[in-house]
Amino acid sequence: MPTRVTVYEVGPRDGLQNEAATVPTQDKLALVSALAGAGLRRIEATSFVSPRWIPQLADADALVPALPRVAGVSWVVLVPNARGLERLVEALRRAGDGAPPVAAAVFLSASESHNRKNLNRTVAESLAELEAVVPAARAAGLGVRGYLSTVFGCPYEGAVDPERAATVAERLVAIGCDQVSLGDTIGVATPALTRRVVARMLRSIPPERLALHMHDTHGTALANVLAALDLGITTFDSSVGGLGGCPYAPGASGNLATEDLVYMLNGMGYETGVDLEKLVAAGALAQRLVGRNLPGKTLQAELARREA
Amino acid sequence: MPTRVTVYEVGPRDGLQNEAATVPTQDKLALVSALAGAGLRRIEATSFVSPRWIPQLADADALVPALPRVAGVSWVVLVPNARGLERLVEALRRAGDGAPPVAAAVFLSASESHNRKNLNRTVAESLAELEAVVPAARAAGLGVRGYLSTVFGCPYEGAVDPERAATVAERLVAIGCDQVSLGDTIGVATPALTRRVVARMLRSIPPERLALHMHDTHGTALANVLAALDLGITTFDSSVGGLGGCPYAPGASGNLATEDLVYMLNGMGYETGVDLEKLVAAGALAQRLVGRNLPGKTLQAELARREA
Repeated sequence: MPTRVTVYEVGPRDGLQNEAATVPTQDKLALVSALAGAGLRRIEATSFVSPRWIPQLADADALVPALPRVAGVSWVVLVPNARGLERLVEALRRAGDGAPPVAAAVFLSASESHNRKNLNRTVAESLAELEAVVPAARAAGLGVRGYLSTVFGCPYEGAVDPERAATVAERLVAIGCDQVSLGDTIGVATPALTRRVVARMLRSIPPERLALHMHDTHGTALANVLAALDLGITTFDSSVGGLGGCPYAPGASGNLATEDLVYMLNGMGYETGVDLEKLVAAGALAQRLVGRNLPGKTLQAELARREA
Repeated sequence: MPTRVTVYEVGPRDGLQNEAATVPTQDKLALVSALAGAGLRRIEATSFVSPRWIPQLADADALVPALPRVAGVSWVVLVPNARGLERLVEALRRAGDGAPPVAAAVFLSASESHNRKNLNRTVAESLAELEAVVPAARAAGLGVRGYLSTVFGCPYEGAVDPERAATVAERLVAIGCDQVSLGDTIGVATPALTRRVVARMLRSIPPERLALHMHDTHGTALANVLAALDLGITTFDSSVGGLGGCPYAPGASGNLATEDLVYMLNGMGYETGVDLEKLVAAGALAQRLVGRNLPGKTLQAELARREA
């Protein structure tokens, strides 16, 4: 059994992009610093998506050069297309020698309907675009992560064929993605489906090049993580406090909370490198920044315990 | 792998006893009827605890004779002591030929400090009392379930020795309990601890005489259920909507929600006999009766989806 597990924090990007409030750049920097200070080593900081689509992340050009250099931490920034990659490369160029270590992340969906709604393209068209973007990112010296959404179900199509999802995931690896994160975008997976999908992926992709990105819509996220851990997956995405969700998935209650994931992994003896107490402090900061209580259970239990 | 799993509903008792509002008897009957109508076959309806301790369940003498007879459903009523058992037997006697099928449930803690705080007795004193109460219940023709609290951790003592918990569980079986429900009263268990505790219990108690009663304080309840399912446990306690919690466990966010449990089990192909749609309707009723949104994730996601 692997003993080291990577907790991949997506809150500052996947969380904040779905919040009503736009958090000021300095506050975002305080949040990502708190997350790094808690021991998280992969933190997705922002996205170079068009500000017209996601005004919450319109400050990416200013944020990226200001990301702190923390030993062992590599930041990740989402780039939806060639234009986003150009903006990332330019932001790093401006930072010069002080540029923080950053990787790029790209995304598409396993289901046609979701990809069209989200990206206004067919899956084949998205893959064709990524066949240019991913090598360009690598040529610029960046690591690249690929997100594959709706692997476990699509809000428009329902069930998604694992064979089809695996074909797209294989393509992402083939064009140069270091890792493919399999997304349960609408949080419908059970451990049985997780086992089926992961087992299929492992037939053609080694475990260290796979990650799971589960949503906790039905409370099953950690059970799905457990199922995947037992199959050898060692990277799991989560969001501080459970911040965020998917705007295209009605009723989806959002990302697995990082505190809940770390509570389970640390408690099972996996080495995550994350200090739960410091993570809870980061979660409390995230709550203040967005002005509402976040859904993470461990976060709420720990904050209540401290008040008691 | 067993394909039938029993979802044991505790909301009307374990949930309502922890609510600020006292729900009228007729409304309780509507709730338990809705739960039975959704296909639940073991439903804990109330408790013959002293009304001074738990005024929310002070109507047990009136409620029990009025419990509906539904094919396949057996109700369960908590009896804390000999006096509680007398009240239960008397309530059934009053119902005469129309008496509903009812079993009794007794309880104590695996940890001394929690047992003292909760029952004002040592564990040995509680066991001595139950050595009279359980056989008396059986003599009255009642099945008996035993609850063992704080098996996975105690709010006062921290870790609990699985060996010690197993000794108490074995005693409950020896004195006549049909089933022992192992309670994670403060919701601290991880799947690793669940495996350790369940494996120890299975050395001396057959799987069908064990149940798991997990709290979702840290979001791990379904992961723990999965771990126990894989070891052959086939009865799991849960509460409609996640109603309730433990008043002696600060910050505990309460019971595993029945809808989340059923979502996972049905989705994995286990036969629960529970119709999720009808269960969500029962959860919506529970919310109206207690006047607040309940924490169950599937309940909230399904209600939001219907509104969308």
